[in-house]
Amino acid sequence: MQNHISAPQAYRMDIAYRGTNFSGFQSQVDRNAVQDHIEKALATYFRQPFRIKGSSRTDAGVHAEQQVAIFRTPLTFISDQLIYGLNSILPNDIVIKKVQAVGDDFDPIRNAKAKAYRYQLWLHKSQHPFIRDYVWSVRGRLDVKLIEQVYTVLIGEHDFTSFCNRDSDAKTKTRKINEIVMDVRGPLVTFWFVGEGFLKQMIRIIMGTYIDIALGRIAPERLPDILAAKDRCAAGQTAPACGLSLVDVFYEQVPSVKELMERSAKGYGLIIS
Amino acid sequence: MQNHISAPQAYRMDIAYRGTNFSGFQSQVDRNAVQDHIEKALATYFRQPFRIKGSSRTDAGVHAEQQVAIFRTPLTFISDQLIYGLNSILPNDIVIKKVQAVGDDFDPIRNAKAKAYRYQLWLHKSQHPFIRDYVWSVRGRLDVKLIEQVYTVLIGEHDFTSFCNRDSDAKTKTRKINEIVMDVRGPLVTFWFVGEGFLKQMIRIIMGTYIDIALGRIAPERLPDILAAKDRCAAGQTAPACGLSLVDVFYEQVPSVKELMERSAKGYGLIIS
Repeated sequence: MQNHISAPQAYRMDIAYRGTNFSGFQSQVDRNAVQDHIEKALATYFRQPFRIKGSSRTDAGVHAEQQVAIFRTPLTFISDQLIYGLNSILPNDIVIKKVQAVGDDFDPIRNAKAKAYRYQLWLHKSQHPFIRDYVWSVRGRLDVKLIEQVYTVLIGEHDFTSFCNRDSDAKTKTRKINEIVMDVRGPLVTFWFVGEGFLKQMIRIIMGTYIDIALGRIAPERLPDILAAKDRCAAGQTAPACGLSLVDVFYEQVPSVKELMERSAKGYGLIIS
Repeated sequence: MQNHISAPQAYRMDIAYRGTNFSGFQSQVDRNAVQDHIEKALATYFRQPFRIKGSSRTDAGVHAEQQVAIFRTPLTFISDQLIYGLNSILPNDIVIKKVQAVGDDFDPIRNAKAKAYRYQLWLHKSQHPFIRDYVWSVRGRLDVKLIEQVYTVLIGEHDFTSFCNRDSDAKTKTRKINEIVMDVRGPLVTFWFVGEGFLKQMIRIIMGTYIDIALGRIAPERLPDILAAKDRCAAGQTAPACGLSLVDVFYEQVPSVKELMERSAKGYGLIIS
């Protein structure tokens, strides 16, 4: 498969995974991160150790329709054969979609202009077996109209310390959320987030706070104060990882949520690119 | 939960399941059919044996967004409590969505005016981890345009012996397909079927024949002859069960495929009722 040795070349990998059985994207001590599995598959394929670098860490249990990573190798290979080989080695719930050569200066984190996530709630007394692994089925009586009144308060550039896990090692907690859109389709309530970057568990704490508002635990009008408090204690619970998916990472144009929603509806729930 | 005994009352159950781990809907010797699990759950809940009767058998591995079954009991119960109880007992991939009292003459099979199924193909070199259990990933070079030329030949009332499993005990092999619609969305190709009734493995053999046409194994212009042959040997392979879902069973109005597609796109791939 690999023919001859030349100077190292950078490659971009497009990856999708069902996060349920993994400890996030980035390597952890348990070696059960998506990154570990991909590095192991690359090592098996090329018979030498490999390291990859992803654009987003994603928490344990979070899914990805589109994650981007890079690796470097002086080995040459045929992209389709590599994809086929890696997918044969990898567990069923991790898929390599694309491998393409990129310039040596391509950095999956620094070059990312924005990322899109969606968080799905399922508000029905019974589950839907097709999507139960991709939603948070919230228990209790919820009034989602209470969220509707205030959720857009978090759009824009803010210090999101209140919505950041205390373990975060981020130098600044200021992030810019371009858009948040709430989309109610019967029992399926989807929140779309597009932003330049997100802090550790930021979307999950935002979602947990929204749900605490819907459950009547937090008054909706307190949301601006929670943001201003810059204190994790001020915000609500952390929503479970299973409802969250990394939808896409944008290196060129940043689409609007409306465009993403249309692409998703067209693909029967999948963003097909 | 059950309070007092009265005359037996008929109840309609709306059920969804991920068929992957079950031997179809209807009881089999292995007692791993969806029906077996629901009867066992009812028996656990009510502490007495129960029998249910479904509208469609569905093969091993076939999914259902909406299956309808009935049961009769003189016991009284609160519907939401029963749903909650059954779903707590049942495996995660079977869900009771609704239980409602119906007239004693309601027959889930005979009263069904039509049924809708969809069969999903995934034509891409790599899988999509979110839907891989719900699609047939066909290997080989396919030209779906060849299917497009002829697939509508099967619409209407025909003797479908060529598209029926030889084990079938149906008295007549004549069935009426109201509509077949092929919908291409990049690598996701969905075939929608609405008909008054379907023979054993009928949709799977139709789909297998379509794929044999796309693979160049069967000339497209032969499809009318295959139908006319009234011989299972004349048709193509049987497509795998995993791509097939029972979408809905209609007892009142029968919607068009266009309406079903719109409902599905609105629900991000789910028909939410």
